[in-house]
Amino acid sequence: MPQSFKTLYRVSWADTDAAQIVHFSNFFRFFERAEEEFYMHIGLIDQLGDKEIIIPRVEAFCQYRKPAKFNDLLEIELTVEEIKEKAVKYGFKIYKNETKELLANGYVVAVATNKQTLKATQIPKEIVEKLKTFCNK
Amino acid sequence: MPQSFKTLYRVSWADTDAAQIVHFSNFFRFFERAEEEFYMHIGLIDQLGDKEIIIPRVEAFCQYRKPAKFNDLLEIELTVEEIKEKAVKYGFKIYKNETKELLANGYVVAVATNKQTLKATQIPKEIVEKLKTFCNK
Amino acid sequence: MPQSFKTLYRVSWADTDAAQIVHFSNFFRFFERAEEEFYMHIGLIDQLGDKEIIIPRVEAFCQYRKPAKFNDLLEIELTVEEIKEKAVKYGFKIYKNETKELLANGYVVAVATNKQTLKATQIPKEIVEKLKTFCNK
Amino acid sequence: MPQSFKTLYRVSWADTDAAQIVHFSNFFRFFERAEEEFYMHIGLIDQLGDKEIIIPRVEAFCQYRKPAKFNDLLEIELTVEEIKEKAVKYGFKIYKNETKELLANGYVVAVATNKQTLKATQIPKEIVEKLKTFCNK
Repeated sequence: MPQSFKTLYRVSWADTDAAQIVHFSNFFRFFERAEEEFYMHIGLIDQLGDKEIIIPRVEAFCQYRKPAKFNDLLEIELTVEEIKEKAVKYGFKIYKNETKELLANGYVVAVATNKQTLKATQIPKEIVEKLKTFCNK
Repeated sequence: MPQSFKTLYRVSWADTDAAQIVHFSNFFRFFERAEEEFYMHIGLIDQLGDKEIIIPRVEAFCQYRKPAKFNDLLEIELTVEEIKEKAVKYGFKIYKNETKELLANGYVVAVATNKQTLKATQIPKEIVEKLKTFCNK
Repeated sequence: MPQSFKTLYRVSWADTDAAQIVHFSNFFRFFERAEEEFYMHIGLIDQLGDKEIIIPRVEAFCQYRKPAKFNDLLEIELTVEEIKEKAVKYGFKIYKNETKELLANGYVVAVATNKQTLKATQIPKEIVEKLKTFCNK
Repeated sequence: MPQSFKTLYRVSWADTDAAQIVHFSNFFRFFERAEEEFYMHIGLIDQLGDKEIIIPRVEAFCQYRKPAKFNDLLEIELTVEEIKEKAVKYGFKIYKNETKELLANGYVVAVATNKQTLKATQIPKEIVEKLKTFCNK
C-alpha cells in the first residue's frame, strides 16, 4: 500500500492577487515546496542541488476547485504516481486544513537530465529505490 | 481561419531560479501576461478588473520543451481553443524569438463566475463575440 | 526590556535566482512572513485582512550581508522599533539558523490608512497596546 | 548634465496582492527590470550574466507614495547616483505614466564581487566608463 507524504503551508499575503485569492501560478510553487519537504523527509534533499543530474519538470498541471485565501493553512499531499527509468510523476492534492476541503489537485512530471548534455538520463538508483516505497505502480 | 495573438516578453533576472533557467511556475505568469495583452488588443481589458463576473482559471497545463534563460526575448502566442457558454480555453505557445524554437506550450481553462455566489455563470456576450473571431470551433 | 519575535523559514527553489542565491526582492517577502506570524502570535492576524483600516508599507529597506541559498533554514527576528500614533516601524534580522550568521537586516515602516479615503489614520488601539509590549520606545 | 534612463512597464495581475495594489516587494523587481533595460541600452547586458565578477545588491530601499494597480502603465526612471571603485548606487523613480504622479522612489547599491572568493572587487572598467556618462558625481 503506497504511502502519501503530507506537509502544511500557510498562505502569505504575497501569495495572493487582486481577486483576494492565491494566484493560480502559486499552486505550482506549493507543489514544489511539498516536493522539497518530501526529499528532506526521505533524506535526499541534497540530490536536488547543484549536481550533474538535474530533474527538471517537463509537464505541470493543476485543477482549481476552490480558492485559497490569505492566512489559510493548507495541507499539501504528495503521492508518487509513476516511476519510469528516466521520469517520475508526482500527484498533488491541496486541502484547506481546517475543513479538509479539496482546493486543488494536479501533477508534475520530471525527467532526469544530464546537466552538461541536457539529454534525458537514468534517475539515480538511490532516488528510484526511495521513491518506489511511495509508489504502487 | 482563426487568428492567433502574439506578444513579446523579455525574461528578467527575477524570473530565473538556481538552475539558471526560468522557474517552471513563471511560464503560467507569461501565459497570463499574454492573456492580458490580448484583452487590451480586443478592447476588453476593463472586463478583467473588479466586476461582478470574474473569470478564474479552473485548469492550467504546461509542457516544458526547452529552458528559457535570463534576457531571452520570448514570443508568446495565444489562441482561443474553445468557447463554451460559461468557459473558455486558451492555448499558448512560447517561442524563443531569436531562433523560433518552441520552448513551451500549454493551456488555461477559465470559467465565468458570479463574484458573490461563486457559481459558474454565462460569459458576458460582449466577450464571447470578440473571442469567437479568434476561434475556429 | 523589549522582546523580539522569531520565526523560521526554509528557502524554497522558487525563492532563488540564476546567481544561485535568494533573489534580493524575496527578503522583503520573508520580512512580511515574519510580520504575519507575529500577528498570529499576538492574536491579531484578523486585523491584517479585509478591514476599513489597512496598514500599507510606506518604506522598506534591506541590507544584504551574505547570500541565502536553496534549502537554508532562516531565522527571522522581528522587533518593534517605534510606534507612533499612525505609524509603526518594524526591524528585521535574518540569520542562517545553522550558523547564526547574520545574512540581512532591514526595516519596514507601515502607516494605518483608511481604506476608503486612503488617508493616514490612527492605528487601532488594540494593535497599539499589543505592539507596545514589544517596543522599548 | 547627467542623463536619466526611462522605461515602461505594465502591471500584470500576478504583480498585485489582496489589497488590490502591487505588492510592495514587486517594486524592487521593477527597479531591477529598469536596470536590465538600462544595461541593454548601454550595450552591457552580457556583463550581468554568468561571469567571474558579479554585482549583487548590498542595499535596497523603497519609499511608497501612492499605490500602483493592475494594468497601470508605469514609467520607471533610473539614474546613476554615485559610482565608486567597487560600488554603484542607482536611484529609481516610478511614475504612473498617464498622470505622471510619482508612485514610489528608491535606490539600490550594488558591489562588484569576485564570484569565487565572494570578496568585493573593482567594477570592470568598461562598465564604469559607461555608467559615468549617466552620473554627475
